[in-house]
Amino acid sequence: MNQTCAVKRYTFGTPFPTHAVVRSIPCETGEVQEMLVRDEGRILQLLLDAEDIVFGLGEQVRGLNKRGWKYISNNTDDPNHTEGKHSLYGSHNFLMIDGIEKIGLFIDTPGKVIFDIGYSMSEQLRIEIPDRNYDLYVITGPSSEAVVHTFRALIGRSYIPPRWAFGYGQSRWSYETADEVREVVREHRERGIPLDMVYLDIDYMDDYKDFTIDSEKFPDFPSFVQEMKEQQVHLVPIIDAGIKKAEGTYSVYDEGMEKGYFCKDAEGKPFEVAVWPGRSYLPDFFREDVRTWFGDHYRGLLDMGIDGFWNDMNEPAIFYSDKRLKEVFAKIEEYKKQNLDVNSFFEFQASVSGLANSPEDYRSLRHDTEAGRIGHESVHNLYGALMTKAAADGFRRARPDTRTLMFSRSSYIGSHRDAGIWQGDNMSWWSHLKMNVQMTASLNMCGFLYTGADAGGFGDDASPDLLLRWLGFAVFTPLLRNHSVRGSRRQEIWRMVRTEECRQILSLRYAFLPYIYSEYMKAVFEDGLLFRPLAFAYPDDARARHVEDQLLFGEGLMLAPVVEQNAWGRYVYLPEDMKLLRMRSACDYDEEILQKGDHWVPAMEHEILVFIRPDRIVPFGSGEARSTEQVSTEELRLLSYIKTKAAYDLYTDDGVKNVQGPEDGIIIHYEQSV
Amino acid sequence: MNQTCAVKRYTFGTPFPTHAVVRSIPCETGEVQEMLVRDEGRILQLLLDAEDIVFGLGEQVRGLNKRGWKYISNNTDDPNHTEGKHSLYGSHNFLMIDGIEKIGLFIDTPGKVIFDIGYSMSEQLRIEIPDRNYDLYVITGPSSEAVVHTFRALIGRSYIPPRWAFGYGQSRWSYETADEVREVVREHRERGIPLDMVYLDIDYMDDYKDFTIDSEKFPDFPSFVQEMKEQQVHLVPIIDAGIKKAEGTYSVYDEGMEKGYFCKDAEGKPFEVAVWPGRSYLPDFFREDVRTWFGDHYRGLLDMGIDGFWNDMNEPAIFYSDKRLKEVFAKIEEYKKQNLDVNSFFEFQASVSGLANSPEDYRSLRHDTEAGRIGHESVHNLYGALMTKAAADGFRRARPDTRTLMFSRSSYIGSHRDAGIWQGDNMSWWSHLKMNVQMTASLNMCGFLYTGADAGGFGDDASPDLLLRWLGFAVFTPLLRNHSVRGSRRQEIWRMVRTEECRQILSLRYAFLPYIYSEYMKAVFEDGLLFRPLAFAYPDDARARHVEDQLLFGEGLMLAPVVEQNAWGRYVYLPEDMKLLRMRSACDYDEEILQKGDHWVPAMEHEILVFIRPDRIVPFGSGEARSTEQVSTEELRLLSYIKTKAAYDLYTDDGVKNVQGPEDGIIIHYEQSV
Repeated sequence: MNQTCAVKRYTFGTPFPTHAVVRSIPCETGEVQEMLVRDEGRILQLLLDAEDIVFGLGEQVRGLNKRGWKYISNNTDDPNHTEGKHSLYGSHNFLMIDGIEKIGLFIDTPGKVIFDIGYSMSEQLRIEIPDRNYDLYVITGPSSEAVVHTFRALIGRSYIPPRWAFGYGQSRWSYETADEVREVVREHRERGIPLDMVYLDIDYMDDYKDFTIDSEKFPDFPSFVQEMKEQQVHLVPIIDAGIKKAEGTYSVYDEGMEKGYFCKDAEGKPFEVAVWPGRSYLPDFFREDVRTWFGDHYRGLLDMGIDGFWNDMNEPAIFYSDKRLKEVFAKIEEYKKQNLDVNSFFEFQASVSGLANSPEDYRSLRHDTEAGRIGHESVHNLYGALMTKAAADGFRRARPDTRTLMFSRSSYIGSHRDAGIWQGDNMSWWSHLKMNVQMTASLNMCGFLYTGADAGGFGDDASPDLLLRWLGFAVFTPLLRNHSVRGSRRQEIWRMVRTEECRQILSLRYAFLPYIYSEYMKAVFEDGLLFRPLAFAYPDDARARHVEDQLLFGEGLMLAPVVEQNAWGRYVYLPEDMKLLRMRSACDYDEEILQKGDHWVPAMEHEILVFIRPDRIVPFGSGEARSTEQVSTEELRLLSYIKTKAAYDLYTDDGVKNVQGPEDGIIIHYEQSV
Repeated sequence: MNQTCAVKRYTFGTPFPTHAVVRSIPCETGEVQEMLVRDEGRILQLLLDAEDIVFGLGEQVRGLNKRGWKYISNNTDDPNHTEGKHSLYGSHNFLMIDGIEKIGLFIDTPGKVIFDIGYSMSEQLRIEIPDRNYDLYVITGPSSEAVVHTFRALIGRSYIPPRWAFGYGQSRWSYETADEVREVVREHRERGIPLDMVYLDIDYMDDYKDFTIDSEKFPDFPSFVQEMKEQQVHLVPIIDAGIKKAEGTYSVYDEGMEKGYFCKDAEGKPFEVAVWPGRSYLPDFFREDVRTWFGDHYRGLLDMGIDGFWNDMNEPAIFYSDKRLKEVFAKIEEYKKQNLDVNSFFEFQASVSGLANSPEDYRSLRHDTEAGRIGHESVHNLYGALMTKAAADGFRRARPDTRTLMFSRSSYIGSHRDAGIWQGDNMSWWSHLKMNVQMTASLNMCGFLYTGADAGGFGDDASPDLLLRWLGFAVFTPLLRNHSVRGSRRQEIWRMVRTEECRQILSLRYAFLPYIYSEYMKAVFEDGLLFRPLAFAYPDDARARHVEDQLLFGEGLMLAPVVEQNAWGRYVYLPEDMKLLRMRSACDYDEEILQKGDHWVPAMEHEILVFIRPDRIVPFGSGEARSTEQVSTEELRLLSYIKTKAAYDLYTDDGVKNVQGPEDGIIIHYEQSV
């Protein structure tokens, strides 16, 4: 359908090359026709019709329809994702106006971009690009689906993880020892709770040094990795952006310092920051030689049998810099001498809390690029993406034929080709479950298909019903991980009350896995969406267009997760007749045909609502599998709702080797008719 | 109906007299039959049935049904009311289990109480009273309505404000000068936006000193008060708990210090804290002489024509104490000497951010009570209530026959007899609009009828659509105030885009005012609820029982506010046939009879959904009034939905004089039949 879309590129100033776009689009020479351009490109303006929906922006707060708020692309490590925030960890500057016309806009710049979408003026979209250096892509087409598809083709094929990465992963900050990990695995296996991954957060390292293992806590790590693999469990260690300052005892540091691989300050000296390892340095990922050097370091862990990683702290997060800390200490000296009044007291508090991720530090950072040494601010949003690229290129060199799991916290469009992302340090809040639903579809539009939020929530304490409801949605997200912060209530399924109900819900993931994997791979091959707002499939249905809490999932299913505490069901809008499956486990569910229109559908906490669209088939396993290895595409049942006839092509492959298209896998064809 | 409820009182330890309960209930001598009592009264336990709903707890986070979270009664000045919080500004230890049996529980103690309502174990209610000194009231009865009514009769009649306090109030932290206030009034009057009150936040005072006026910013204050009154606008100044340390220049301080009226530290010296005025002292409201002294100080402002106040910072909020600040500064000295590692850095940050409302300071505070000098911790949750009592008793002495507006931030059950409360420093978040809806009904159960949240949200920035939707609910809350924090987006209606739509919605408040006032007064006289969950009126309707976002409002109306951004309507459950009014203004609305059951009801941002119950009448004005003075009870239209016949008794009075019951006012009787 993309042949019917028009793509135009306009260039303002001298854009920094982000490599987000992989196709060469000639630059327009005339004026921008679709928008009002003001102040030499600093402002782009567009009137919104009352009926227009604005989709997109990937990882951002609020709903599917982004109207009514101001969003700022400015990658930020802020764990308090409330409605009042403007920035999260990634910058995904693609949005789409879905009205009588469909207009996709991509502002390609790694600097700050401010999207005022009907916030200042209800009917105005106003985009501000303070430094005026960017490429503007304008895509117009006949449908939202076509516009997004065209955009996705522009930015290149999404990342493909190994198939085991579609399993259930258990995480905690942190499982501190090999024995703790063994306990996690044992508890899952003994209780029949499926498990494919255990995540290692920062404490597996020796003193938070990247690419090291604490050999007291994890003796003979390669054997341990192997032992876990025999249990069909992959260990997935974290890698942070910062390299610990540890002269003479840490070769990564020594080599990086010797070769000048670290980001500089304004005077050209390596810029010292404090992150988890204490005093550290940030690799200058803007240099290809640094990326190669860093990416090759993953090989050590690969050689120990590790086949998946998560990259963290790469906004980059800075707890503080020595320079700023000294300034704050000096200020505190002054405060101490004063008879501190309340305003000075608040200044004092703000100066201390403002040490983290300080704009002043970001302004001091310098990068060496092909265009010479440049300030960090103008390229801030690309740092995490380039760390991811360093890793991904390293994997391509180390094991060119094999997939490696990689997902990152920070990202920019383009990273979606190299890795997935998790949705950051969310909270055990019902509102964050809802945000998970909405953000996942928005991220899909921007190319990020391998994504998910920490199920149950990372920060704060999860209640058992929240975990249960969260799993009820997360069993459909490609990245399915239960993760929680140090000090919070333990939320491993087996430690929570309602273990059995969680286990049953989780078994559904493995029953749906052939379909999930097939739909994921098709979305990759076809530059399509795995999760879609109803507006995409039913553009002429005014009610469907505004649905914010139901999503289409692949070609056959509609999901309607319950995201409210103490609910016994929920309202669902059906844009056409569908078959409802109210599922408690892979072998325990009710079926009912519901007619187009509004329904209140009961759904107890241990039940999920899955709708099959008419004339669609969804292959479905037994749910007996306890790991992805045990999931077979043989002897699948077919969930279906046949009005006349339906067909489904199930894609599968070995799940490990790199593939380029459906021709590299196997298609199993199903058909049904009345 | 209360004659059918049983009330039992059990006493544990030596409860501090809170005076929350005004009726004398003999103490049971036997064991508690309704709950398992463990550890000498420290723990109360009860099994919850899956069907049980737990209502109550007044000012708390989360939904109407409190199941699935842990709530802690511990009055706290914390503006970040996220789902993960356990405490807000008030302690309202009444809850009601609504199942096959209806059980009301009131834990009467001013110390900490922890309510684990199906959070640790899904089917267990566990109440912990760490210090074991409390009265437990157990109310059992045939219905939730009856149990709450019995509880309300136990705690005494709710506060009655003047009728003008049911008007619209505009606030900002702060309108700094008389001219700024004049501008606010002028802009409302010129644009025909109704207005009854302008609030004065802390900056009207001279240097934040209670009971003073900054005479440069507000010259000739009494004349200014009069000038505003001529415009039918009441000025409502704030009074804070802390008294500024200002020796020789501030008589309140000098007198308080001389007479030993301030809270003491462990050594018996006046406890110095820092709040808005800088170094300050907290009046020891636990002493009757101090309350009398403080309460009499309001007279100065009353004499200037002021007739309403809000009491703030009375949890009490403490920004820091000198003692703790010195400790933190000393610690910082140590940190400076160290090569700060990350853990120490976080300790350093936490020690600075933890200066506010520190448990250590609360532990140091002492009060003089009839039982001698006692530690603050065991009576913490009563401090704000006693400040309110000081004010209310002062008003009773100063103007015994006249009502005075008073609402407070902090409260305890019992305060509801003396004043209203506002729902604290909320945020401009959609989730806080929803919380406003739910909290208002929960507060009604605990006796707080004069209540409302800052419409549009106090902290963070409001979008125009949020303000519009918020007003759509707040026009029904007795306290209706638009308030916002310094530095946030201005949210006066006339400064916001969509002024005209806001103005029209606001006119509905004045059109409904005769009904709102009548229903409010009846709820006071009858110990009833103004806002009720559907479960109270339709206890046998399983669907109605679980509705969390619709409320009955008085005897005739059901409200279904839209609390989602970018929604074009919402689902509504009707437990019986009702008449829908989709209202844009007092003279512009659609009518439609909707049948019992589920409906998706369109409601654009400038429309509100009001449902009339069958055979109910709601008197309704023209909406032309621009102040409550202009609201007449003559020539009212009748909104009604008559299936057979209906009657309504409209209560009214002069709105100023104290009244004891309906006999002190006028009843206008309306009847309609088919």
